[in-house]
This record gives sequence, C-alpha cells and structure tokens, in this order.
Amino acid sequence: MNMAHLSRTQTLSRKGNDTKLALIRSGVEIMTTYGYNGANLEHILKNVGVPKGSFYYYFKSKEDFGKAILDYYNIFFINKLDQHLLNQHIPSALDRIHAFYRDAKTNMAKYHFNRGCLVGEFMQNESLLPENYSILLNNILHQWQDKIFACLQIAQQQHEIHPQLDSKKLACFFWLGWEGAVSRAKLTKNAAPLDTFIEQFITLIQSNKNK
Amino acid sequence: MNMAHLSRTQTLSRKGNDTKLALIRSGVEIMTTYGYNGANLEHILKNVGVPKGSFYYYFKSKEDFGKAILDYYNIFFINKLDQHLLNQHIPSALDRIHAFYRDAKTNMAKYHFNRGCLVGEFMQNESLLPENYSILLNNILHQWQDKIFACLQIAQQQHEIHPQLDSKKLACFFWLGWEGAVSRAKLTKNAAPLDTFIEQFITLIQSNKNK
Repeated sequence: MNMAHLSRTQTLSRKGNDTKLALIRSGVEIMTTYGYNGANLEHILKNVGVPKGSFYYYFKSKEDFGKAILDYYNIFFINKLDQHLLNQHIPSALDRIHAFYRDAKTNMAKYHFNRGCLVGEFMQNESLLPENYSILLNNILHQWQDKIFACLQIAQQQHEIHPQLDSKKLACFFWLGWEGAVSRAKLTKNAAPLDTFIEQFITLIQSNKNK
Repeated sequence: MNMAHLSRTQTLSRKGNDTKLALIRSGVEIMTTYGYNGANLEHILKNVGVPKGSFYYYFKSKEDFGKAILDYYNIFFINKLDQHLLNQHIPSALDRIHAFYRDAKTNMAKYHFNRGCLVGEFMQNESLLPENYSILLNNILHQWQDKIFACLQIAQQQHEIHPQLDSKKLACFFWLGWEGAVSRAKLTKNAAPLDTFIEQFITLIQSNKNK
C-alpha cells in the first residue's frame, strides 16, 4: 500500500499500532531475559524511544502490558510448534519434534543463551505475579502440551513409540523437562542441556518400541 | 551443655551463631518462595527481629548472604539425597529415587506448594544474579547429579534399567525434568507435575529392561 493513499487517521492509527507492537517486541526481549519482575519498564521504553506517558496510552499497567506480551509470544510460539509438528515434509513425527528442538536451539544460540522461554520466565516469577497470571500460564502450557500430544499420537500410529505409553502424560513430561532444560541452558550459556534433554527423551520413548 | 557452664564470651558467641543461623533459615524460606531478586532483605530481618545494622555484622552484602544460604541449603539437600539414595533398608535403587520424590512432595505440600527448590529459584534469576553465582549453581547441580548417577548405576547393576542406557546423561536428564516439575508445581499449587514426572521417568527407564 502506498503511503499517499492513507488518510491522516489511517497514518496515525498505523503509527500507533507500530508503536504498540514495538513496545510488545521490546517487552518480549527484556522479559525473556529478566522475567516479569526483573523487567524494567523504563528500559523497555528507552529501547523503543517512547515516553512513559505514551506507554499508558497503549497499556493500562505493567500487568496489562505483560498480558499483551504473553498473548503475542503465545501466537508466535504456537506458529513455531505448528510449523514443525505439522510439517508434512517430515514423515516421522519424532523427527518433527527434533526439528522443533533444533530451531529453538538455534534461536537460543542467536541470543547467546541469554533469553529463555517467556512462559518459563513468568512461571518462575509465580510468587510475585499478578493473581490471574497463573491461570493464563497454565492455559498456554496446556495448548503447547496438546500440540506435542497430537504429535506423539502420530508417532504411536507410526509405531515409533510403544502404543502402551500414555501420550498425554508424556506430553506433560516433555514440557516439564523442556522448560527445565531451557532454564539450565541460560545458566550454562550453551546448548548442552537442550541436547541432553532431547536425546534422552527420544531415546527413552523410542526404545519402548521393542517392549 | 548447661548454660551455667558457659562463659560470657561463649554465651555471646552462641547467641551470635543462633542469630546468623536464624537469618539464613529465614533467607531460605523467603528465597525458595520469591527467588534471589524477589527476596526483600527487610522482610527477612523483620521475620528474625534483627536490625539492618546487625545484619551487616554477619554478612557483607546480599551477595554474601545469598552464598551462605546456598551453602546451607546444599548441605541440607545433599543430606536429604543421601538419606534416601543410600538407604540400605530399601533394596531397589529405583525405589530409593521414588522415596526421595515422596519426601520432596510432602515437603512442598507442607508449604502449600509456595516454596520451590532454592537452586531452581536462583537459576531462574540467572540474568540478575551476582556474576560468580552461576559457577556455584552449576557446581551444586553437578553434586546432585553425581548422587543420582551413582543410584542409577546401582539400578543398572540390579538390572532394573537397561545396561546400555547412559546413566550419566540420564542423571542430567533427571534434574532438568525435576527442576521443571518443581517450578510447575509452584504454578499449579499441587503435586500433579511431580507425580507425572516421576511416574514417566521411572516407567521410561524401567521399560528398557526388555529392550
């Protein structure tokens, strides 16, 4: 669309949306590094070049801002999961999980293992979060679990893992270990925890084939 | 020892040690709930009834205090692990790991799932911790890993798990999932994540017996 075709209102509204999006993106960057409580609002505003007054035009409060960030991150992450776990070009369901891991690992390396998973970071601040956040976080984690669950069900149909394994519990087990591995990778500043996690997870569930 | 036999210096020194220990214990309580950065020093001092000036008699800084807390917690936790993992009254090594889980679960329930693992809490604050803390945390986690590793080696000797499984990597995998499960249990405020973790972990490594 050519700028000349936009009315003044449209231009302002687009500018507003751009600013709001820039604030959310900066929030994701800072909060995946420092968590919700460790994130400094002034730091975020400075990154975007927005005065504090303008911030409150877009968000009622830090709580409101945090929710918008969670929403944005969840959409991004669900897309990422679908991109790999529903990838028809990869026939093996376990290979799809492996492709997700490789992508996440590349992304963590890109930021020198300083940024974790936003949901993991928020979860870890649980005692200090606004009250209704734990429901939001649980809902998001259940959405992610359902994605892995569906993929593990395909793996069972493909006889890659034993039919007697409980895919639903296994999907929950996956995210417990995954979040632990991401948190540990932030500490060690390398991919070793992610590597160990995925290697052991896949080895352990695969070996059940022969049970 | 009868108080009457203590000299004035001994009495004062014992009182000093009691205060120091009370500060450390209160620190463990607050920091397993709120993490290192979320912990309010004044809150801790108020709990113990110690003025700020006295605090600095015992500890140079919050950083110094945090280290003392980590040391104290690590000794407590190593004892806890040994109590279960070296328990000669439980013949099966996997049953010993299960006993550790039951103990930890009871302890989390006692505090209504508001307190997590101190090392996990600190790890999650990684970006905001004093610089040398990550080395301390890694060292502690390696000590814990060695304990589980030794126990898994016994399980292999007992043919409870397949000899081809890599016990060392499995021990690392255990703690990734364990810390993730403790963190998630703080969020859900119930034991379900711990239950799922231990059930799946033991099922998956046991089933390899038949590989």
